[in-house]
Amino acid sequence: MQAPDALARLVGDYLATLELNPDLGAQQGSMRYALEGGKRIRAVICLATAEAAGVPPETALPAAGALELVHAFSLVHDDLPALDDDDERRGRPSAHVAFGEGVALLAGDALLAEAFRLALSYSSTAPARELADATLGMIGGQYLDITGAHADLDELHRLKTGRLFAASVGLGLQAAGLPAAEQGPWRAFGEELGLLFQVVDDILDGDGYAALLGAEAARGLALAAARRARAALAAIPADTSVLGEIVDGLVTRSV
Amino acid sequence: MQAPDALARLVGDYLATLELNPDLGAQQGSMRYALEGGKRIRAVICLATAEAAGVPPETALPAAGALELVHAFSLVHDDLPALDDDDERRGRPSAHVAFGEGVALLAGDALLAEAFRLALSYSSTAPARELADATLGMIGGQYLDITGAHADLDELHRLKTGRLFAASVGLGLQAAGLPAAEQGPWRAFGEELGLLFQVVDDILDGDGYAALLGAEAARGLALAAARRARAALAAIPADTSVLGEIVDGLVTRSV
Repeated sequence: MQAPDALARLVGDYLATLELNPDLGAQQGSMRYALEGGKRIRAVICLATAEAAGVPPETALPAAGALELVHAFSLVHDDLPALDDDDERRGRPSAHVAFGEGVALLAGDALLAEAFRLALSYSSTAPARELADATLGMIGGQYLDITGAHADLDELHRLKTGRLFAASVGLGLQAAGLPAAEQGPWRAFGEELGLLFQVVDDILDGDGYAALLGAEAARGLALAAARRARAALAAIPADTSVLGEIVDGLVTRSV
Repeated sequence: MQAPDALARLVGDYLATLELNPDLGAQQGSMRYALEGGKRIRAVICLATAEAAGVPPETALPAAGALELVHAFSLVHDDLPALDDDDERRGRPSAHVAFGEGVALLAGDALLAEAFRLALSYSSTAPARELADATLGMIGGQYLDITGAHADLDELHRLKTGRLFAASVGLGLQAAGLPAAEQGPWRAFGEELGLLFQVVDDILDGDGYAALLGAEAARGLALAAARRARAALAAIPADTSVLGEIVDGLVTRSV
């Protein structure tokens, strides 16, 4: 079993040498810029899930890469003036500041289409179908965020953050070819990760759940999600120790 | 064999009743708005190709719908202030004027993801893979358009317009399950349609090829593309009469 850090390096190398569609020409530069940096959490979850489910993590690299491309697409579009209007991302100028709004808009579009190309590397349509559903859920969450149409933060983040985290487990299972009948407890695990990630994010940023509930109550929410995640792992008849490490890392992370 | 008008009605009914991902919630309204109207040329080519290749056109409806969703996505994003900044589309306010820039941006993203969901209705990954490659080529063309990095209009439109027209034939063949070894002359036909469409578009709008070459020379270019398209059809061992009608319609259209 490879540790989370080793899996992060694996996906980092994969993305750094990823071939993009040659028709994209110089547009590729803005896409690679948007893909640099980041913690690769979704990809690491996908690779660790696949390895725990019985295949070499390399088998899941196209699926893990697809998740990171969808994540990068969502950040590039979120940062645009029409949405969050953020000038900085991962300590650097955001894509539209570095390349202009038009190129950044197209870079996001191309990252999404390339994500599907990667998810379509498998002989089954299942990974790409799961990616499409998760992406649509995430966009539904972004819509709730900008219109304020959500009843509460849970409804918002179940979609905006949760769908892609759940799919990180789901695509790992699909890449491993685990039969649907055996996926239940794995998916229950995946359902907890988005909330766990988001609450800790809000505590670190002092907004969202932390602003709404106070840091202490938010910390309690994160610990409860981590507890449920570990309980789900305990129900899986496989060595899920690396997934357990990932849960620990999500609880204790400081960046 | 169904006539082009009947095929257009078929795809119009399909799109009007298309179920979108329920997680999209009220965002669906902006997507349906962006899908209304339009000539459905790409979808009709796809359905007519599938029927000529030996299956009922209904078999190709998800593929044809996917092409229209990709086309609608590209129009919604092209019309945004960051790209062409067009306030009107199909005689109505463009999506960002009707719904705001943020919602329009997300509507385009969601149309693209839904397009893949449709193309993934088939048991083979081939239709979705072809859609991904065509979409990436189209985006590469949009990039050339906004950066002015193309050597000539042919290079620009081979990508920006041509890729999705060629894929309209390609997805019809995939939906029909035509073996790759038999697809050659069909694909040669599909390669001519983008240029034919674009040159006539420019003649009607008085820009592009018409502005560069004059209306008469542009007309000659369109007729030459139509001639090559008909020659390609003549090499196909099937009843391609409806595809011939479509070529005639593209040459003589006035809107």
